[in-house]
Amino acid sequence: MNYKLTIEYDGTRYDGWQRQVRTEQTVQGKIENVLSRMEEKDIQIFGAGRTDGGVHARGQVANVHLSGNRRKREILEYLNAYLPEDIGILRVDGVPERFHARLWATGKCYSYRIGTDSCKSVFDRKYRYALGKELDVEAMRRAAADLVGTHDFQSFCGNPKMKKSTVRKVTEILIEEFPHEVKLTFRGNGFLQYMVRILTGTLIEVGLHQRDPESMGWLLEQRKRQLAGCTAPAQGLCLEEVYYHGEEELLTTSYNNN
Amino acid sequence: MNYKLTIEYDGTRYDGWQRQVRTEQTVQGKIENVLSRMEEKDIQIFGAGRTDGGVHARGQVANVHLSGNRRKREILEYLNAYLPEDIGILRVDGVPERFHARLWATGKCYSYRIGTDSCKSVFDRKYRYALGKELDVEAMRRAAADLVGTHDFQSFCGNPKMKKSTVRKVTEILIEEFPHEVKLTFRGNGFLQYMVRILTGTLIEVGLHQRDPESMGWLLEQRKRQLAGCTAPAQGLCLEEVYYHGEEELLTTSYNNN
Repeated sequence: MNYKLTIEYDGTRYDGWQRQVRTEQTVQGKIENVLSRMEEKDIQIFGAGRTDGGVHARGQVANVHLSGNRRKREILEYLNAYLPEDIGILRVDGVPERFHARLWATGKCYSYRIGTDSCKSVFDRKYRYALGKELDVEAMRRAAADLVGTHDFQSFCGNPKMKKSTVRKVTEILIEEFPHEVKLTFRGNGFLQYMVRILTGTLIEVGLHQRDPESMGWLLEQRKRQLAGCTAPAQGLCLEEVYYHGEEELLTTSYNNN
Repeated sequence: MNYKLTIEYDGTRYDGWQRQVRTEQTVQGKIENVLSRMEEKDIQIFGAGRTDGGVHARGQVANVHLSGNRRKREILEYLNAYLPEDIGILRVDGVPERFHARLWATGKCYSYRIGTDSCKSVFDRKYRYALGKELDVEAMRRAAADLVGTHDFQSFCGNPKMKKSTVRKVTEILIEEFPHEVKLTFRGNGFLQYMVRILTGTLIEVGLHQRDPESMGWLLEQRKRQLAGCTAPAQGLCLEEVYYHGEEELLTTSYNNN
């Protein structure tokens, strides 16, 4: 059976999603360890997005093939009982054998929260980048409008050795103002390494009047990482949702044994 | 000069508000230590509410007498720079010399958050009591209505040696339903030790159909702690606000030197 896991985590204590040899502190590693214990053999899971160290998730998706015919509820409860308190499984769904959380993903949604006042925020300190400065949100919106669309995002790619295509389609950059906070929401068919954080860093520079809001078209054309803004800190970023085609058909009852 | 501090804290790591000899981990102690360092002498602050260990605050109030004529902004920035990241000062206001945060308080507002689904919540785990069961909110509202008013709350007082009056006026108990959560908001002229947590524990029992919603009048009349419900866990409780008479006049410009 192939199962789709919907996962949330507070990334503060972790070196990112992806299992690594040099550290025990990865989200993938923690989940695989619990599943391997449950199955009494090595289990591998396939995550949709490889979030960086310190990045959070409210809707990460992974899939896992398990022998036997375990009930979804049993898997959910086992995982939540044995995972650390900062990793939670929100749902377990039965999916077709061919389903792969990363390869089948058609899009993702990320949020980035920026604290704009100088007061420290006790309750949001781990989930917000404490910029502590006012932002010109209208300028940021003008710049963001030129970033939306299908472009070569090489200027916003953190991996200098990236050999595959750096063309991505960004369908929405929503910029919302709250008291003491500006929140950016990015939707697109996929994002390059550090791309959301570099887009955010660049838009922050626009909001601080350190960069021309009309320069985004030029910046995309240059295809040079060093011309874009800084990489905004990990703690403000959260993987909100992963999208799949025909989500409702995917989770048909034929795969669902509760 | 007398200053009014508005304070928020994540109470998770602390043994409550009040300074104690046997522990360094109190919020009052942490703030006094920083102010004593700033003033180069022992400084005492006076808090409005003595929150228990593990209880949070978004609007605790304290006052402090400082010699010199420091700017409010200077005090605010000094405190926020040297306090731990889970204690924050939201405001510093100049107030009359006679002002005392506890004695002048005319009322307080507390919130209590209850998680009602069985999924664990990564982001709210420190700020919510994970009950994991559905609550009959209508029954809770019927019971709460009989608790509002001026009553002898001895049945809801956690201090068996309380010698002073246990009469208090509860002006509002608001019960709100959210996805996965029920939130209680209590407003009143003052609350006895553990009173909000015992009220909450009792209302939870009503919501679980373990206690008759019509029994609150009888329970108040009995004046016996052992007849009320359990003391709900500290982590769900938050001191939201402290009220003062003529708040605007209190903070007149004559005391305000920025």
